Amino acid sequence: MKPIKVGLLGIGTVGGGTFDVLKRNQEEIRRRAGRGIEIVMVADLNTARATEMTGGQCEVVSDANTVVNHPDIDIVVELIGGYGIAKDLVMKAIANGKHVVTANKALLAIHGTEIFRAAQEKGVMVAFEAAVAGGIPIIKALREGLSANRIQWVAGIINGTTNFILSEMREKGLDFGTVLKEAQALGYAEADPTFDIEGIDAAHKATLMSAIAFGIPVQFDRAYVEGITKLNAVDIRYAEQLGYRIKLLGIARRTDAGIELRVHPTLIPAKRLIANVEGAMNAVLVQGDAVGATLYYGKGAGAEPTASAVIADLVDIARLATADPNHRVPYLAFQPDAMADIPVLPMAEITSSYYLRIRVADQLGVLADITRILADASISIDAMLQKEPGEGESDTDVILLTHRCQEKQVDAAIARIEAMTTVSGKINRIRMESLA
Amino acid sequence: MKPIKVGLLGIGTVGGGTFDVLKRNQEEIRRRAGRGIEIVMVADLNTARATEMTGGQCEVVSDANTVVNHPDIDIVVELIGGYGIAKDLVMKAIANGKHVVTANKALLAIHGTEIFRAAQEKGVMVAFEAAVAGGIPIIKALREGLSANRIQWVAGIINGTTNFILSEMREKGLDFGTVLKEAQALGYAEADPTFDIEGIDAAHKATLMSAIAFGIPVQFDRAYVEGITKLNAVDIRYAEQLGYRIKLLGIARRTDAGIELRVHPTLIPAKRLIANVEGAMNAVLVQGDAVGATLYYGKGAGAEPTASAVIADLVDIARLATADPNHRVPYLAFQPDAMADIPVLPMAEITSSYYLRIRVADQLGVLADITRILADASISIDAMLQKEPGEGESDTDVILLTHRCQEKQVDAAIARIEAMTTVSGKINRIRMESLA
Repeated sequence: MKPIKVGLLGIGTVGGGTFDVLKRNQEEIRRRAGRGIEIVMVADLNTARATEMTGGQCEVVSDANTVVNHPDIDIVVELIGGYGIAKDLVMKAIANGKHVVTANKALLAIHGTEIFRAAQEKGVMVAFEAAVAGGIPIIKALREGLSANRIQWVAGIINGTTNFILSEMREKGLDFGTVLKEAQALGYAEADPTFDIEGIDAAHKATLMSAIAFGIPVQFDRAYVEGITKLNAVDIRYAEQLGYRIKLLGIARRTDAGIELRVHPTLIPAKRLIANVEGAMNAVLVQGDAVGATLYYGKGAGAEPTASAVIADLVDIARLATADPNHRVPYLAFQPDAMADIPVLPMAEITSSYYLRIRVADQLGVLADITRILADASISIDAMLQKEPGEGESDTDVILLTHRCQEKQVDAAIARIEAMTTVSGKINRIRMESLA
Repeated sequence: MKPIKVGLLGIGTVGGGTFDVLKRNQEEIRRRAGRGIEIVMVADLNTARATEMTGGQCEVVSDANTVVNHPDIDIVVELIGGYGIAKDLVMKAIANGKHVVTANKALLAIHGTEIFRAAQEKGVMVAFEAAVAGGIPIIKALREGLSANRIQWVAGIINGTTNFILSEMREKGLDFGTVLKEAQALGYAEADPTFDIEGIDAAHKATLMSAIAFGIPVQFDRAYVEGITKLNAVDIRYAEQLGYRIKLLGIARRTDAGIELRVHPTLIPAKRLIANVEGAMNAVLVQGDAVGATLYYGKGAGAEPTASAVIADLVDIARLATADPNHRVPYLAFQPDAMADIPVLPMAEITSSYYLRIRVADQLGVLADITRILADASISIDAMLQKEPGEGESDTDVILLTHRCQEKQVDAAIARIEAMTTVSGKINRIRMESLA
């Protein structure tokens, strides 16, 4: 059978990796796919660099439209990023009857519904394994490997930059700002790190996982997003003393009331395997009703790990291209006509356990007042840590771990506690999940 | 589209789990698969129990031939086990043009080549996700998720019984025999535990993974198989003091000389995630050239975790049934006409690092003699641990960790060391892998 022909939009880090891996392993990949997979055209504004990277082995053009409109191209790989021009090009490629592979989580988390609908109408595949957790085949696991299960929740370390920063903060006892600079120097964080450190990137990925896990449309605008910029080294240290690690988790959870979709720093028991995922590595923990917990771990970014996912999608398309379009694997795991209309809950309605760090005056009765407020709000306390005041200080830290309760209960209790004259400053609240 | 019809051969633990999960999650599964998946007939010698388990919701027969010959059945699920009657029935089902799903690792590790060839000729699928690591979708990850990679090695904790025993031995400092009895009482080990504790079950699974990873035929007869029955609590303790855990690993590794395929107790650095997989859990670590290391973790056995894998295969078949038989996912990841002829190496030719526990007389010069023998054999020493003799004893333990060398070098050195008059008894040799 003749090779399947691929056009690449953008040849930066991931595009270069895709080109290199496809070339290096072409024989191995052909033996798996049953036919060759050839990049025949690359579009990049920097045509000189693109020509150098491809070594003159395929046509290089500056206008991406040339690729999406080319009659010989079967699959368009979109690696431009963002949701401006990338969206136009993906929609044009679909309209032209081409299959699409993309690593663009932002695009799909925001415009996925429109893109998948168009693809369904044209009978083409849109594959996006590289969009979540890089080289880890988590989309495939959720969409195919666990298809017997009613998925209960998904919780993942799905942003390598923030996991690197948190690992360094814990190991070296350093503050966020110091470690961020180190991460930027090492290339683990971008010059403008906002998308990573504010949790937006993780929320894009969590949105995609929530859709696949529960059969709901992508709803990035309903996701709660909290990054790691306000985390203190002291909280990481206290958490450790209590037997916990702090990780930035993307969580999608099914409850009777609706779906929780949230990204925030989270205390998890240090003995859990996922608590021991360090540095820039990613891991996703999935709880299904039949299989129980399964974990998927690996590199979530980088040229070749991401290329690994892009090429796996190309092989899938080469293998599945002959199947009836209505009987391939659905884009979001569930058939388009069988999506569920379960609401994503507002943050006030979610349930979690909580870590509360409260700065109190070191005097009699303060703790009694605080625990009374919590009891009034029906919040029960799981553990407590009280520190001695520092030399010459009259205030000290009290750390409380609560049992599970609703976020709005905690919001109300925090407001009351902060109003106490014996409490100074803001309470530092970090959510806590047992992941059991 | 009308439901796909399934016949079950054997309704014991896994069959019962498959029936239950398919019933409980039928709506969710139908929404994913795009059509219903119905068990319409069950064959079991114990028809009374089968009728009770299925609640009269499908036909129960005692003769499995009734299922494999039934014209209405699309997929036969073989859960009988072994390679006698199970093989005949699978071959008959294939001859009758039915797709087959099986959890039978022994059958495929030994007769896979014949079975897959017959299936290829008839254009039917043979799916076996449940045969390796239960509910963890590791076959799918290796066969599809990592298809871009030249796989370098696979190393897995793929037998829950032995991992439970090793975890208990380490945590409680108990001997193998004591923990085996406990595991049997808890239902983690069979009355006749030979297949598990001698490593045979793990070797069946490692054989299947080696074929999928490297595109070679299944060659169980070439696998090196060593169980955990000769492990001492003292070795687990010494390993721990040196920063290692002992796990029964199934290893498939590609080298320039050929494929290593081996199952044996293995020292691995305690800091590795896979070293912290405890109890009856399974985990598989895969090293690919593009993606690097990825890890897959979950329950490797049990009614519902195994059913999760069986049903995922049913969903895959429902989704892929319309594809051209020559362009579905190949049985062993590589197209049948593109299998490789790389030899599986004899054990003497493999390379590893080694843990050697040597019982020596506590006298001058013994260590010099031993290190001289190792140096003569070009084996270099990575670490050493020498214990004080016990109260009233004149012998003591010396533990040596070697750098990587060939198994036959170590065989020769061990023979020479054991011949020393100052060395008593046999040397305890355990292989060691860094998994880096």
